[in-house]
Amino acid sequence: MEPGRLEAFSDGVLAIIITIMVLELKVPHTSDWAALLGLAPKIGDYVLSFVYIGIYWNNHHHFFQAVKRVTGATLWANLHLLFWLSLVPLGTGWMSETDFAPLPVAAYGFLLLMAAIAYFILTQTLIAEPGRNTDLQKALGRDYKGMLSPLIYIAGIAAAPYSALVSLALYALVALIWLVPDRRIEAALNQ
Amino acid sequence: MEPGRLEAFSDGVLAIIITIMVLELKVPHTSDWAALLGLAPKIGDYVLSFVYIGIYWNNHHHFFQAVKRVTGATLWANLHLLFWLSLVPLGTGWMSETDFAPLPVAAYGFLLLMAAIAYFILTQTLIAEPGRNTDLQKALGRDYKGMLSPLIYIAGIAAAPYSALVSLALYALVALIWLVPDRRIEAALNQ
Amino acid sequence: MEPGRLEAFSDGVLAIIITIMVLELKVPHTSDWAALLGLAPKIGDYVLSFVYIGIYWNNHHHFFQAVKRVTGATLWANLHLLFWLSLVPLGTGWMSETDFAPLPVAAYGFLLLMAAIAYFILTQTLIAEPGRNTDLQKALGRDYKGMLSPLIYIAGIAAAPYSALVSLALYALVALIWLVPDRRIEAALNQ
Amino acid sequence: MEPGRLEAFSDGVLAIIITIMVLELKVPHTSDWAALLGLAPKIGDYVLSFVYIGIYWNNHHHFFQAVKRVTGATLWANLHLLFWLSLVPLGTGWMSETDFAPLPVAAYGFLLLMAAIAYFILTQTLIAEPGRNTDLQKALGRDYKGMLSPLIYIAGIAAAPYSALVSLALYALVALIWLVPDRRIEAALNQ
Repeated sequence: MEPGRLEAFSDGVLAIIITIMVLELKVPHTSDWAALLGLAPKIGDYVLSFVYIGIYWNNHHHFFQAVKRVTGATLWANLHLLFWLSLVPLGTGWMSETDFAPLPVAAYGFLLLMAAIAYFILTQTLIAEPGRNTDLQKALGRDYKGMLSPLIYIAGIAAAPYSALVSLALYALVALIWLVPDRRIEAALNQ
Repeated sequence: MEPGRLEAFSDGVLAIIITIMVLELKVPHTSDWAALLGLAPKIGDYVLSFVYIGIYWNNHHHFFQAVKRVTGATLWANLHLLFWLSLVPLGTGWMSETDFAPLPVAAYGFLLLMAAIAYFILTQTLIAEPGRNTDLQKALGRDYKGMLSPLIYIAGIAAAPYSALVSLALYALVALIWLVPDRRIEAALNQ
Repeated sequence: MEPGRLEAFSDGVLAIIITIMVLELKVPHTSDWAALLGLAPKIGDYVLSFVYIGIYWNNHHHFFQAVKRVTGATLWANLHLLFWLSLVPLGTGWMSETDFAPLPVAAYGFLLLMAAIAYFILTQTLIAEPGRNTDLQKALGRDYKGMLSPLIYIAGIAAAPYSALVSLALYALVALIWLVPDRRIEAALNQ
Repeated sequence: MEPGRLEAFSDGVLAIIITIMVLELKVPHTSDWAALLGLAPKIGDYVLSFVYIGIYWNNHHHFFQAVKRVTGATLWANLHLLFWLSLVPLGTGWMSETDFAPLPVAAYGFLLLMAAIAYFILTQTLIAEPGRNTDLQKALGRDYKGMLSPLIYIAGIAAAPYSALVSLALYALVALIWLVPDRRIEAALNQ
């Protein structure tokens, strides 16, 4: 199968996830600065999740440029990734609702960790397909980012009972690492 | 007509259905383990419905690969399928809200049964179109899965007053049967 | 401009409208037959609106098959149509919420009337574009359906203070008239 | 990378934003004219935001017709634009909820201002890419509209504490200026 419809479906789900989070930002009932300031941490939270979904969309976009055909296994590996990402709005809302209590902050890190693992499985599924994906393997090379991210997430989860700020800083750090889209793939394709 | 826009529209509806169910997972107001455990059966419920929508998307994707042209009848047969699937979030939410009471569990099975029937009608509509779809017929062959699924759904509905667990196990069983995408079509196309 | 992106955007908006209406079907808090029966008129309501959005999508799909290029005016005529259709979930919800009181039933008919007018403007905008759309004009021919529908809507609006049932029957009648997709266009294209 | 998937993702997000605003239009619980009149300013509000999202979609559509390839920087400049637009439903809802109080009206203008700046950054990112976008630069020419809009937004924000009506009139004025799609690009492409 060609990857066109898989990409379109993923685009649809990611577009909805990114905008569903706005629904969690409840419209304030008063019109003063206190209402706006009360919204501020939720908006900060929204920015982080927006950037994360944006990163996954960008990397998904980059990676699938090198993919010519997909199998049933790829479809499910992709749905598995979308499943964990679809829970991000819930995790984001729980953190906001509880003013960044330890358990919700750790749960949010857990969702990011599972999404990272799902993305890893997706890339490996594509590379494992017989014959045609040696370019992908070469392009990924030694996936330093992919190996580093889970470790930082685990550190962030472990830090949650002590300091939500440290956890969030670690989650934001991973986002920063990934903000640069995957030039490795672009480079390998250009050769 | 070419099936491109029918596929895009179906992808859009299915992507929204799959993510709308997340909105039923209400953000807990407390931040303890009890809140997370209270969420657990709803998340299990969400997983089942997510997998079901995923299965329909996968099979839809596979099946339409062998379809070259669609008529007005096909558009409506497809909308009929989307109608029943669009009620799945409601059925999922009702089960969760009532802690898997008999009637909601039976109603959920009824929705799955109607979706299965709608999918059957859709495939038959495509096969019935004159001349060009003998490949589809051959690919479907004797549709064991398609004939077995409704029987298991009916058993699940019948079991609902006695044991919600048995009903859910039967619904999950059908999901397992279908998790393998339709290799028959792939095989017939490859010849 | 080519119509591809206009079609994709319209598909997206219509897919969301059709599924947003499900959110109005609030999950019942009890699990008995009374809850299910209480849901019944809302589901009937949902079916009518689902069919209406489906009809617009089908006709939109058919009509744009004969369209090769679009201008800025077409983009806005199309957005105008989507605007009225986007209010259909609100109208549907208001009817359900008030048990089909006269004003909401009339307001629903008004939305359908405005959507019909917007669709008429859209087709005329496309036909009015210089030179290339004589096929469209010929295909539409004498647009009996397009001229009859507004009259039936107005009758339905006028009947609302006397009998919601008559109004709804008239709205359903228009749906029935349109359920057959626009064979005129198919026929003209096939020549 | 080709811009196809960026366009599809943007279409998806904009389609959802435009329809999410309808969810803010809460279904009235009574069925009298007072309920409908109470809805009127919210619908007026919705029209303004609908037109704004429509303008961005139209201009986005026009502009990307002249774009052949996109880089990672473009993807993020585009996501940045979508971020500010995704907050428009929240701003719209806040204005409606507080009966157009000064702060929400100013905040709405701020969102429009940031979206305008994000659109400017997006166009400049595309033009700055080496070699291939001289057509775009020529097409944009002296971007009078793009330079005028932020000034009017700032005037609208400044007017909010004195008169919400003046602010809204200024925001509507910018919408009117942009309602005509970007003929400059069409003209330059036709040469």
